[in-house]
Amino acid sequence: MLKLYYVPDTCALASHIALGEAGADYETVRLDFRANDQRNPDYLAINPKGRVPALVTDSGALTETPAILAFVAQRFPQARLAPLDDPFAFARVQAFNSYLCSTVHVAHAHRMRGTRWADDPNAIAEMQRKAPEAVGDCFDLIEREMLEGPWVMGETYTICDPYLFTLAQWLEADGVDPARFPKVQDHCQRMAERPAVAKALAEELG
Amino acid sequence: MLKLYYVPDTCALASHIALGEAGADYETVRLDFRANDQRNPDYLAINPKGRVPALVTDSGALTETPAILAFVAQRFPQARLAPLDDPFAFARVQAFNSYLCSTVHVAHAHRMRGTRWADDPNAIAEMQRKAPEAVGDCFDLIEREMLEGPWVMGETYTICDPYLFTLAQWLEADGVDPARFPKVQDHCQRMAERPAVAKALAEELG
Repeated sequence: MLKLYYVPDTCALASHIALGEAGADYETVRLDFRANDQRNPDYLAINPKGRVPALVTDSGALTETPAILAFVAQRFPQARLAPLDDPFAFARVQAFNSYLCSTVHVAHAHRMRGTRWADDPNAIAEMQRKAPEAVGDCFDLIEREMLEGPWVMGETYTICDPYLFTLAQWLEADGVDPARFPKVQDHCQRMAERPAVAKALAEELG
Repeated sequence: MLKLYYVPDTCALASHIALGEAGADYETVRLDFRANDQRNPDYLAINPKGRVPALVTDSGALTETPAILAFVAQRFPQARLAPLDDPFAFARVQAFNSYLCSTVHVAHAHRMRGTRWADDPNAIAEMQRKAPEAVGDCFDLIEREMLEGPWVMGETYTICDPYLFTLAQWLEADGVDPARFPKVQDHCQRMAERPAVAKALAEELG
């Protein structure tokens, strides 16, 4: 049985959706950042980084959204969530997810988690001020160059789609008008119609 | 023929080493940040992000170090650079590389590239001031929890090793004493003895 540790409204939603899309048998454990659950010794034994998500498998724990998403695709090949037999096509999927992880999520994190990179409150406030511009620039690039449509990789739904959907949920709170990105908005609407997305959101919000 | 676009002393070194380890037939194209080569329209047509590395293949261009490294491992399976037949073990490799990309490299980037996340010079200076602490915390975790030894994943050399080696080269310039991390230092020495590492460094520094 796979067990996903998550916090609502975080990037863990992408893995949560992917598990549903894969038809995996899984359970979830909700952590609460306000209670500092992610620093609890029991959780640090699972994920020493003290972050979410973590996916506990029969072989051990996995972290990092791009790695978990690729694991789900490889572990449940019948769900066809990635082009597993084509190294180039698989690398394009991974490159998209790596960009979301290392650039888009990082741009967003400067609004909420500035203390990772500065102590001075004025510097943290300056990061917050610039976050909409940095996040907006990322989504401009996604809209213009990366999102093929109707799904990220074109005609075929992949593990890129739940990840993009997850990060696009944060645009308004980041001070970025989602209407600037019609292809991304269209993608979000199409995602919201998928049963696995509705199920994951219901589990996280319930 | 694979073609790697790189800038010396950047994370592109990891892909460069991996191509050598794989026994790939490749050529390199050196870009110069000072000449702003990465913003040249010809290069932006290859990589609209204006960053390095980019790996041009017969099928098209790939970006993002974790994706390129996994591509090299999958494209040259005889080199055994990743556990390709074990989704869990492959995901652990990917999780390590994703951490380097999205957390370690990002912590480092706050010393050199603060303008990505702030405009105010005081805020940028504050990020520079804190970078040694943030980078040091990352390497503490790598030393304590992640680097199994002698290679990152234990007895078997993988695509994690050139990436860790590459980022560890930046410690001193980041103001972090490498002697704090004896396992990482030992790993760097073992890496430096590999012909593919010596060849990549010679090509980049030549």
